[in-house]
Amino acid sequence: MAEEVILLDSWVSPFGMRARIALAEKGIKHEHREEDLGNKSDLLLKMNSIHKTIPVLIHNGKPVCESNNIVQYLDEVWHDKSPLLPSDPYLKGQARFWADFVDRKVFDAGRKVWVTKGEEQKSLMEEFIGHLKTLEAELGDEPYFGGEKMGYVDVTMVPIYSWFHAYEVSGNFSFESHCPKLVAWAKRCMQHDSVSKALPDPEKVYEYVLQLRKRLGIE
Amino acid sequence: MAEEVILLDSWVSPFGMRARIALAEKGIKHEHREEDLGNKSDLLLKMNSIHKTIPVLIHNGKPVCESNNIVQYLDEVWHDKSPLLPSDPYLKGQARFWADFVDRKVFDAGRKVWVTKGEEQKSLMEEFIGHLKTLEAELGDEPYFGGEKMGYVDVTMVPIYSWFHAYEVSGNFSFESHCPKLVAWAKRCMQHDSVSKALPDPEKVYEYVLQLRKRLGIE
Repeated sequence: MAEEVILLDSWVSPFGMRARIALAEKGIKHEHREEDLGNKSDLLLKMNSIHKTIPVLIHNGKPVCESNNIVQYLDEVWHDKSPLLPSDPYLKGQARFWADFVDRKVFDAGRKVWVTKGEEQKSLMEEFIGHLKTLEAELGDEPYFGGEKMGYVDVTMVPIYSWFHAYEVSGNFSFESHCPKLVAWAKRCMQHDSVSKALPDPEKVYEYVLQLRKRLGIE
Repeated sequence: MAEEVILLDSWVSPFGMRARIALAEKGIKHEHREEDLGNKSDLLLKMNSIHKTIPVLIHNGKPVCESNNIVQYLDEVWHDKSPLLPSDPYLKGQARFWADFVDRKVFDAGRKVWVTKGEEQKSLMEEFIGHLKTLEAELGDEPYFGGEKMGYVDVTMVPIYSWFHAYEVSGNFSFESHCPKLVAWAKRCMQHDSVSKALPDPEKVYEYVLQLRKRLGIE
Protein backbone atom coordinates (compact mmCIF):
# COMPACT_ATOMS: atom_id res chain seq x y z
CA MET A 1 0.00 0.00 0.00
CA ALA A 2 1.25 3.48 -0.84
CA GLU A 3 1.77 5.50 2.33
CA GLU A 4 -0.33 8.63 2.62
CA VAL A 5 1.27 11.11 4.98
CA ILE A 6 -0.16 14.58 5.63
CA LEU A 7 1.21 17.15 8.06
CA LEU A 8 -1.12 19.83 9.43
CA ASP A 9 1.26 22.59 10.40
CA SER A 10 1.93 26.29 10.97
CA TRP A 11 5.18 27.80 9.66
CA VAL A 12 6.16 29.66 12.86
CA SER A 13 5.47 26.82 15.31
CA PRO A 14 8.58 25.23 16.87
CA PHE A 15 6.40 22.16 17.46
CA GLY A 16 5.54 21.94 13.77
CA MET A 17 9.24 22.32 12.94
CA ARG A 18 10.03 19.20 14.99
CA ALA A 19 7.72 17.12 12.81
CA ARG A 20 9.16 18.73 9.64
CA ILE A 21 12.73 17.90 10.68
CA ALA A 22 11.89 14.28 11.51
CA LEU A 23 10.03 13.81 8.22
CA ALA A 24 12.99 15.27 6.31
CA GLU A 25 15.61 13.28 8.24
CA LYS A 26 13.77 10.12 7.24
CA GLY A 27 13.04 11.24 3.69
CA ILE A 28 9.29 10.62 4.06
CA LYS A 29 7.23 11.95 1.16
CA HIS A 30 4.26 13.87 2.51
CA GLU A 31 1.77 16.58 1.87
CA HIS A 32 2.24 19.74 3.90
CA ARG A 33 -0.88 21.71 4.78
CA GLU A 34 -0.48 25.14 6.33
CA GLU A 35 -3.25 25.89 8.83
CA ASP A 36 -4.70 29.33 9.48
CA LEU A 37 -4.68 29.19 13.29
CA GLY A 38 -7.27 31.97 13.46
CA ASN A 39 -9.62 29.87 11.37
CA LYS A 40 -8.73 26.22 11.82
CA SER A 41 -9.74 23.69 9.19
CA ASP A 42 -12.48 21.15 9.82
CA LEU A 43 -9.86 18.47 9.24
CA LEU A 44 -7.68 19.79 12.09
CA LEU A 45 -10.65 20.08 14.47
CA LYS A 46 -11.65 16.52 13.61
CA MET A 47 -8.17 14.99 13.74
CA ASN A 48 -7.16 16.67 17.03
CA SER A 49 -10.53 17.14 18.68
CA ILE A 50 -8.97 17.13 22.17
CA HIS A 51 -6.35 19.89 21.91
CA LYS A 52 -7.25 21.40 18.48
CA THR A 53 -3.57 22.25 17.96
CA ILE A 54 -0.99 21.68 15.26
CA PRO A 55 1.06 19.74 14.36
CA VAL A 56 -1.03 16.72 13.46
CA LEU A 57 0.42 13.91 11.40
CA ILE A 58 -2.16 11.95 9.43
CA HIS A 59 -0.77 8.60 8.37
CA ASN A 60 -3.07 6.58 6.12
CA GLY A 61 -6.07 8.43 7.54
CA LYS A 62 -5.13 8.07 11.22
CA PRO A 63 -4.03 11.07 13.30
CA VAL A 64 -1.00 11.28 15.56
CA CYS A 65 -1.00 14.41 17.74
CA GLU A 66 1.55 16.27 19.89
CA SER A 67 4.95 17.00 18.41
CA ASN A 68 7.16 14.74 20.54
CA ASN A 69 4.69 11.94 20.07
CA ILE A 70 4.81 12.48 16.29
CA VAL A 71 8.62 12.37 16.26
CA GLN A 72 8.63 9.14 18.27
CA TYR A 73 5.95 7.67 16.00
CA LEU A 74 7.91 8.52 12.85
CA ASP A 75 11.01 7.03 14.44
CA GLU A 76 9.21 3.80 15.24
CA VAL A 77 7.43 3.33 11.89
CA TRP A 78 10.37 4.46 9.73
CA HIS A 79 13.04 2.98 11.99
CA ASP A 80 15.59 2.03 9.35
CA LYS A 81 16.65 5.49 8.17
CA SER A 82 18.22 8.03 10.55
CA PRO A 83 17.16 6.55 13.89
CA LEU A 84 16.50 9.38 16.32
CA LEU A 85 16.03 7.57 19.62
CA PRO A 86 18.70 5.17 20.91
CA SER A 87 17.68 1.51 21.15
CA ASP A 88 19.21 1.09 24.62
CA PRO A 89 16.40 1.61 27.20
CA TYR A 90 18.56 3.68 29.56
CA LEU A 91 19.75 6.06 26.83
CA LYS A 92 16.18 6.19 25.50
CA GLY A 93 14.97 7.17 28.97
CA GLN A 94 17.63 9.88 29.14
CA ALA A 95 16.59 11.24 25.74
CA ARG A 96 12.92 11.33 26.82
CA PHE A 97 13.90 13.08 30.05
CA TRP A 98 15.72 15.87 28.20
CA ALA A 99 13.01 16.24 25.54
CA ASP A 100 10.55 16.66 28.40
CA PHE A 101 12.87 19.24 29.99
CA VAL A 102 12.93 21.17 26.69
CA ASP A 103 9.12 21.11 26.55
CA ARG A 104 8.28 21.92 30.14
CA LYS A 105 11.13 24.22 31.10
CA VAL A 106 12.82 25.76 28.05
CA PHE A 107 9.79 26.33 25.79
CA ASP A 108 7.54 27.36 28.66
CA ALA A 109 10.04 29.90 29.97
CA GLY A 110 10.63 31.18 26.42
CA ARG A 111 6.93 31.66 25.76
CA LYS A 112 6.48 33.70 28.96
CA VAL A 113 9.18 36.14 27.83
CA TRP A 114 6.99 37.17 24.86
CA VAL A 115 3.86 37.89 26.81
CA THR A 116 5.45 40.14 29.46
CA LYS A 117 7.42 43.38 29.58
CA GLY A 118 9.73 45.46 31.79
CA GLU A 119 11.25 43.97 34.91
CA GLU A 120 9.02 40.87 34.77
CA GLN A 121 10.24 40.13 31.24
CA LYS A 122 13.85 40.66 32.30
CA SER A 123 13.54 38.19 35.16
CA LEU A 124 11.83 35.61 32.92
CA MET A 125 14.58 36.05 30.36
CA GLU A 126 17.11 35.20 33.07
CA GLU A 127 15.15 32.05 33.89
CA PHE A 128 15.11 31.13 30.19
CA ILE A 129 18.89 31.64 29.93
CA GLY A 130 19.31 29.49 33.06
CA HIS A 131 17.54 26.59 31.37
CA LEU A 132 19.66 27.05 28.25
CA LYS A 133 22.78 26.85 30.42
CA THR A 134 21.49 23.61 31.98
CA LEU A 135 21.14 22.21 28.47
CA GLU A 136 24.62 23.44 27.59
CA ALA A 137 26.03 21.56 30.58
CA GLU A 138 24.17 18.43 29.47
CA LEU A 139 25.57 18.76 25.95
CA GLY A 140 29.11 18.93 27.35
CA ASP A 141 31.69 18.39 24.64
CA GLU A 142 29.50 16.23 22.41
CA PRO A 143 28.61 17.56 18.97
CA TYR A 144 24.91 16.72 19.46
CA PHE A 145 22.60 15.76 22.31
CA GLY A 146 22.32 12.48 20.43
CA GLY A 147 26.13 12.08 20.69
CA GLU A 148 27.95 11.83 17.39
CA LYS A 149 24.68 12.07 15.44
CA MET A 150 21.67 14.36 15.61
CA GLY A 151 18.92 12.65 17.62
CA TYR A 152 15.60 13.06 19.40
CA VAL A 153 16.63 15.83 21.85
CA ASP A 154 18.29 17.78 19.04
CA VAL A 155 15.09 17.61 16.98
CA THR A 156 12.96 18.77 19.92
CA MET A 157 15.28 21.67 20.84
CA VAL A 158 16.68 23.16 17.64
CA PRO A 159 13.44 24.79 16.37
CA ILE A 160 13.65 27.50 19.03
CA TYR A 161 16.90 28.64 17.42
CA SER A 162 14.78 30.28 14.69
CA TRP A 163 13.31 32.47 17.47
CA PHE A 164 16.69 33.48 18.94
CA HIS A 165 17.04 36.46 16.58
CA ALA A 166 13.72 37.89 17.82
CA TYR A 167 14.85 37.56 21.46
CA GLU A 168 18.18 39.20 20.65
CA VAL A 169 16.76 42.19 18.77
CA SER A 170 14.06 42.79 21.39
CA GLY A 171 16.36 42.44 24.37
CA ASN A 172 19.49 43.94 22.77
CA PHE A 173 21.63 41.08 23.93
CA SER A 174 23.54 38.10 22.54
CA PHE A 175 22.84 34.42 23.11
CA GLU A 176 26.37 33.74 21.91
CA SER A 177 27.87 35.60 24.86
CA HIS A 178 25.66 33.71 27.34
CA CYS A 179 25.58 30.23 25.80
CA PRO A 180 28.36 29.97 23.20
CA LYS A 181 28.35 26.16 23.15
CA LEU A 182 24.61 25.98 22.59
CA VAL A 183 24.77 28.47 19.72
CA ALA A 184 27.63 26.48 18.16
CA TRP A 185 25.50 23.34 18.52
CA ALA A 186 22.52 25.06 16.82
CA LYS A 187 24.74 26.19 13.94
CA ARG A 188 25.97 22.60 13.62
CA CYS A 189 22.37 21.38 13.36
CA MET A 190 21.65 24.08 10.75
CA GLN A 191 24.20 22.44 8.47
CA HIS A 192 21.68 19.61 8.04
CA ASP A 193 19.25 20.29 5.18
CA SER A 194 16.50 18.71 7.30
CA VAL A 195 16.93 21.49 9.86
CA SER A 196 17.76 24.51 7.69
CA LYS A 197 14.76 23.85 5.43
CA ALA A 198 12.37 23.24 8.33
CA LEU A 199 13.26 26.44 10.20
CA PRO A 200 11.78 29.71 8.92
CA ASP A 201 13.66 32.95 8.25
CA PRO A 202 14.45 34.50 11.68
CA GLU A 203 13.43 37.96 10.35
CA LYS A 204 9.96 36.62 9.57
CA VAL A 205 9.73 35.13 13.07
CA TYR A 206 10.70 38.54 14.53
CA GLU A 207 7.92 40.26 12.55
CA TYR A 208 5.47 37.62 13.78
CA VAL A 209 6.54 38.19 17.39
CA LEU A 210 6.06 41.96 17.04
CA GLN A 211 2.53 41.38 15.71
CA LEU A 212 1.82 38.88 18.50
CA ARG A 213 2.84 41.41 21.17
CA LYS A 214 0.71 44.13 19.53
CA ARG A 215 -2.28 41.79 19.41
CA LEU A 216 -1.82 41.01 23.12
CA GLY A 217 -1.65 44.75 23.86
CA ILE A 218 1.93 44.52 25.19
CA GLU A 219 3.67 46.86 22.70
CA MET B 1 24.53 -9.72 37.40
CA ALA B 2 21.96 -9.33 40.15
CA GLU B 3 19.68 -6.40 39.44
CA GLU B 4 19.75 -3.62 42.02
CA VAL B 5 16.56 -1.59 41.88
CA ILE B 6 15.80 1.25 44.30
CA LEU B 7 12.76 3.51 44.22
CA LEU B 8 12.96 6.93 45.86
CA ASP B 9 9.34 7.71 46.59
CA SER B 10 6.76 9.52 48.71
CA TRP B 11 3.64 7.63 49.84
CA VAL B 12 1.10 10.31 48.86
CA SER B 13 2.51 11.07 45.41
CA PRO B 14 0.38 9.85 42.46
CA PHE B 15 3.58 9.95 40.43
CA GLY B 16 5.33 7.63 42.86
CA MET B 17 2.29 5.33 42.75
CA ARG B 18 2.74 4.91 38.99
CA ALA B 19 6.24 3.55 39.50
CA ARG B 20 5.02 1.30 42.35
CA ILE B 21 2.25 -0.18 40.18
CA ALA B 22 4.59 -0.84 37.25
CA LEU B 23 7.18 -2.48 39.53
CA ALA B 24 4.48 -4.69 41.07
CA GLU B 25 2.87 -5.59 37.73
CA LYS B 26 6.23 -6.84 36.57
CA GLY B 27 7.16 -8.47 39.86
CA ILE B 28 10.45 -6.59 40.11
CA LYS B 29 12.18 -6.98 43.46
CA HIS B 30 13.31 -3.61 44.70
CA GLU B 31 14.13 -1.50 47.71
CA HIS B 32 11.62 1.21 48.54
CA ARG B 33 12.97 4.36 50.16
CA GLU B 34 10.50 6.88 51.51
CA GLU B 35 11.75 10.46 51.12
CA ASP B 36 11.03 13.29 53.54
CA LEU B 37 10.13 15.93 50.95
CA GLY B 38 10.78 18.70 53.49
CA ASN B 39 14.32 17.42 53.92
CA LYS B 40 15.33 15.56 50.78
CA SER B 41 18.13 13.00 50.93
CA ASP B 42 21.52 13.66 49.38
CA LEU B 43 20.87 10.64 47.16
CA LEU B 44 17.69 12.20 45.72
CA LEU B 45 19.40 15.56 45.13
CA LYS B 46 22.25 13.78 43.39
CA MET B 47 20.14 11.37 41.33
CA ASN B 48 17.63 14.00 40.14
CA SER B 49 19.75 17.13 40.25
CA ILE B 50 17.59 18.84 37.60
CA HIS B 51 14.09 18.61 39.10
CA LYS B 52 14.94 17.31 42.63
CA THR B 53 11.60 15.47 42.65
CA ILE B 54 10.45 11.93 43.35
CA PRO B 55 9.98 9.32 42.03
CA VAL B 56 13.46 8.32 40.96
CA LEU B 57 14.22 4.77 39.93
CA ILE B 58 17.84 3.77 40.44
CA HIS B 59 18.68 0.71 38.40
CA ASN B 60 22.15 -0.67 38.97
CA GLY B 61 23.32 2.76 40.11
CA LYS B 62 21.82 4.74 37.23
CA PRO B 63 18.85 7.09 37.77
CA VAL B 64 15.70 7.25 35.69
CA CYS B 65 13.55 10.29 36.52
CA GLU B 66 9.97 11.41 35.84
CA SER B 67 7.16 8.94 36.47
CA ASN B 68 5.98 8.27 32.91
CA ASN B 69 9.56 7.88 31.82
CA ILE B 70 10.13 5.38 34.64
CA VAL B 71 7.06 3.34 33.62
CA GLN B 72 8.20 3.26 29.99
CA TYR B 73 11.73 2.30 31.07
CA LEU B 74 10.47 -0.55 33.25
CA ASP B 75 8.28 -1.72 30.37
CA GLU B 76 11.23 -1.73 27.97
CA VAL B 77 13.76 -3.44 30.25
CA TRP B 78 11.31 -5.97 31.74
CA HIS B 79 9.29 -6.41 28.54
CA ASP B 80 8.35 -10.07 28.93
CA LYS B 81 6.01 -9.83 31.91
CA SER B 82 2.80 -7.71 31.81
CA PRO B 83 3.62 -5.48 28.83
CA LEU B 84 2.10 -2.06 29.47
CA LEU B 85 2.59 -0.30 26.14
CA PRO B 86 1.30 -1.88 22.91
CA SER B 87 3.93 -2.90 20.37
CA ASP B 88 2.02 -1.39 17.43
CA PRO B 89 3.43 2.15 16.84
CA TYR B 90 0.00 3.71 16.25
CA LEU B 91 -1.51 2.28 19.43
CA LYS B 92 1.69 3.20 21.27
CA GLY B 93 1.32 6.77 20.03
CA GLN B 94 -2.30 6.81 21.21
CA ALA B 95 -1.28 5.54 24.65
CA ARG B 96 1.40 8.23 24.93
CA PHE B 97 -1.09 10.87 23.84
CA TRP B 98 -3.54 9.93 26.60
CA ALA B 99 -0.86 9.57 29.26
CA ASP B 100 0.25 13.09 28.32
CA PHE B 101 -3.38 14.26 28.57
CA VAL B 102 -3.59 12.77 32.08
CA ASP B 103 -0.40 14.59 33.08
CA ARG B 104 -1.01 17.98 31.54
CA LYS B 105 -4.78 18.30 31.86
CA VAL B 106 -6.19 15.97 34.53
CA PHE B 107 -3.42 16.15 37.15
CA ASP B 108 -2.81 19.85 36.60
CA ALA B 109 -6.49 20.72 36.96
CA GLY B 110 -6.76 18.46 40.01
CA ARG B 111 -3.79 20.11 41.73
CA LYS B 112 -5.26 23.59 41.22
CA VAL B 113 -8.44 22.54 43.03
CA TRP B 114 -6.42 22.02 46.24
CA VAL B 115 -4.71 25.38 46.30
CA THR B 116 -7.83 27.50 45.79
CA LYS B 117 -11.14 28.12 47.54
CA GLY B 118 -14.65 29.48 47.04
CA GLU B 119 -15.90 30.27 43.55
CA GLU B 120 -12.46 29.83 41.97
CA GLN B 121 -12.20 26.35 43.42
CA LYS B 122 -15.70 25.50 42.20
CA SER B 123 -14.91 26.55 38.65
CA LEU B 124 -11.61 24.61 38.68
CA MET B 125 -13.47 21.56 39.98
CA GLU B 126 -15.79 21.81 36.97
CA GLU B 127 -12.77 21.93 34.67
CA PHE B 128 -11.35 18.86 36.42
CA ILE B 129 -14.65 16.98 36.01
CA GLY B 130 -14.70 18.00 32.33
CA HIS B 131 -11.32 16.32 31.80
CA LEU B 132 -12.52 13.20 33.61
CA LYS B 133 -15.52 13.07 31.27
CA THR B 134 -13.20 13.34 28.27
CA LEU B 135 -11.32 10.33 29.63
CA GLU B 136 -14.57 8.50 30.21
CA ALA B 137 -15.54 9.03 26.57
CA GLU B 138 -12.12 7.72 25.49
CA LEU B 139 -12.56 4.62 27.67
CA GLY B 140 -15.91 3.90 26.01
CA ASP B 141 -17.07 0.38 26.73
CA GLU B 142 -13.61 -1.13 27.16
CA PRO B 143 -12.72 -2.52 30.59
CA TYR B 144 -9.35 -0.67 30.59
CA PHE B 145 -7.67 2.12 28.62
CA GLY B 146 -5.30 -0.64 27.54
CA GLY B 147 -8.30 -2.58 26.14
CA GLU B 148 -8.84 -6.02 27.66
CA LYS B 149 -5.78 -5.61 29.91
CA MET B 150 -4.54 -2.88 32.18
CA GLY B 151 -1.88 -0.83 30.35
CA TYR B 152 0.19 2.34 30.33
CA VAL B 153 -2.70 4.86 30.46
CA ASP B 154 -4.37 2.93 33.29
CA VAL B 155 -1.12 3.00 35.29
CA THR B 156 -0.69 6.76 34.76
CA MET B 157 -4.31 7.60 35.65
CA VAL B 158 -5.43 5.27 38.44
CA PRO B 159 -3.28 6.79 41.26
CA ILE B 160 -5.49 9.88 41.41
CA TYR B 161 -8.35 7.59 42.47
CA SER B 162 -6.77 7.49 45.95
CA TRP B 163 -7.36 11.28 46.10
CA PHE B 164 -11.04 11.07 45.02
CA HIS B 165 -12.27 10.61 48.60
CA ALA B 166 -10.57 13.86 49.65
CA TYR B 167 -12.24 15.73 46.77
CA GLU B 168 -15.62 14.23 47.64
CA VAL B 169 -15.51 15.01 51.35
CA SER B 170 -14.24 18.57 50.76
CA GLY B 171 -16.70 19.36 47.99
CA ASN B 172 -19.63 17.34 49.34
CA PHE B 173 -20.21 15.72 45.99
CA SER B 174 -19.92 12.34 44.30
CA PHE B 175 -17.61 11.36 41.45
CA GLU B 176 -19.85 8.37 40.87
CA SER B 177 -22.78 10.60 39.91
CA HIS B 178 -20.62 12.63 37.49
CA CYS B 179 -18.40 9.91 36.01
CA PRO B 180 -19.89 6.49 36.83
CA LYS B 181 -17.93 4.67 34.12
CA LEU B 182 -14.61 6.10 35.29
CA VAL B 183 -15.30 5.14 38.89
CA ALA B 184 -16.25 1.62 37.76
CA TRP B 185 -12.99 1.49 35.82
CA ALA B 186 -10.99 2.60 38.88
CA LYS B 187 -12.67 -0.08 41.01
CA ARG B 188 -11.78 -2.64 38.33
CA CYS B 189 -8.13 -1.54 38.52
CA MET B 190 -8.25 -1.78 42.33
CA GLN B 191 -8.94 -5.50 42.00
CA HIS B 192 -5.33 -5.85 40.88
CA ASP B 193 -2.96 -6.33 43.83
CA SER B 194 -0.41 -4.16 42.02
CA VAL B 195 -2.83 -1.22 42.25
CA SER B 196 -4.51 -1.78 45.61
CA LYS B 197 -1.15 -2.19 47.35
CA ALA B 198 0.40 0.84 45.64
CA LEU B 199 -2.43 3.24 46.49
CA PRO B 200 -2.57 4.62 50.04
CA ASP B 201 -5.61 4.70 52.34
CA PRO B 202 -7.92 7.49 51.02
CA GLU B 203 -8.51 8.68 54.61
CA LYS B 204 -4.78 9.28 55.02
CA VAL B 205 -4.70 11.20 51.75
CA TYR B 206 -7.59 13.35 53.00
CA GLU B 207 -5.69 14.16 56.21
CA TYR B 208 -2.64 15.05 54.14
CA VAL B 209 -4.71 17.37 51.94
CA LEU B 210 -6.15 19.15 54.98
CA GLN B 211 -2.64 19.72 56.32
CA LEU B 212 -1.47 20.90 52.90
CA ARG B 213 -4.26 23.49 52.73
CA LYS B 214 -3.50 24.69 56.28
CA ARG B 215 0.18 25.03 55.43
CA LEU B 216 -0.72 27.09 52.36
CA GLY B 217 -2.98 29.27 54.51
CA ILE B 218 -6.12 28.30 52.59
CA GLU B 219 -8.13 26.72 55.43
